Amino acid sequence: MSLSMYQASVPVFIRALNNLAAILEKAAAHCEAKKIDPAALLGFRLYPDMFHFTKQVQVACDHAKNGAARLAGVEAPELGGGEQSFAELIERIKKTIAYLQTFKPEQIDGSETREVVLKRGETVTTYKGQDFLLNRALPNLFFHITTAYDILRHNGLELGKKDYLGR
Amino acid sequence: MSLSMYQASVPVFIRALNNLAAILEKAAAHCEAKKIDPAALLGFRLYPDMFHFTKQVQVACDHAKNGAARLAGVEAPELGGGEQSFAELIERIKKTIAYLQTFKPEQIDGSETREVVLKRGETVTTYKGQDFLLNRALPNLFFHITTAYDILRHNGLELGKKDYLGR
Repeated sequence: MSLSMYQASVPVFIRALNNLAAILEKAAAHCEAKKIDPAALLGFRLYPDMFHFTKQVQVACDHAKNGAARLAGVEAPELGGGEQSFAELIERIKKTIAYLQTFKPEQIDGSETREVVLKRGETVTTYKGQDFLLNRALPNLFFHITTAYDILRHNGLELGKKDYLGR
Repeated sequence: MSLSMYQASVPVFIRALNNLAAILEKAAAHCEAKKIDPAALLGFRLYPDMFHFTKQVQVACDHAKNGAARLAGVEAPELGGGEQSFAELIERIKKTIAYLQTFKPEQIDGSETREVVLKRGETVTTYKGQDFLLNRALPNLFFHITTAYDILRHNGLELGKKDYLGR
């Protein structure tokens, strides 16, 4: 086994999203046990101009989905949108994982120098695949998953680093 | 250029820590401009049993330092400790970066299957280098940097994703 672009992307994304789904299961159970309206967590933001919890999860899914697609040089489908509950967010994560599982190593291996073009409004940024994976896709994915975790911890959910890292 | 264990670790750690140092510079300037006691941010926790800001930064440094050392199979030195100000934390980050810069690619390349043994109290966990890097060192580093960022955002500091990702 030697490190490859596929190894450093798809299985890492899938693991992180599986951990996130398990965290959401805990959040749903917590709301049920404590008779908390799930909307109080789903709509929670750490600061008014930050994304709320639901959006953090949606964006994490999109960074994984689009990250793999961009490295493979294919167009990513829209998956989900408008989720309103923990169950729907978990479904979104599962759909994203199922999509990631369709990638074959040979689609992504060798993408170190493949051009990845990101358009945000009028701004176009071009990356090499390796730079995109290590300095954009992975940090972004972990950013949104960590912030979702931080929102839940801030609201008293009992979670530990093991929930974030997985086993 | 093809992806290697060195490429996926040391330069990624250094970039993330440089971004963190720049965020700390902004936090220090913010305290100065708004006449905020820096201790209010340095000691801030998102929840009582989470690490405070200072500890998040210290732990981020240690994950980078120890991550590189473990992949290289060398003993990491103690760097810093007891930091009490943004300036001291930035100094700690800079020392960590200087240490990371001492690693040569050939010390870390080929460590995919090298055994990494982590001891926490009585628990001993053994990883293969690749698993350790992708599923422990990188997620941990980004976790603590993101949580430090989230603490500052939660306290009103004007930061954006660009500060976290770098340019």
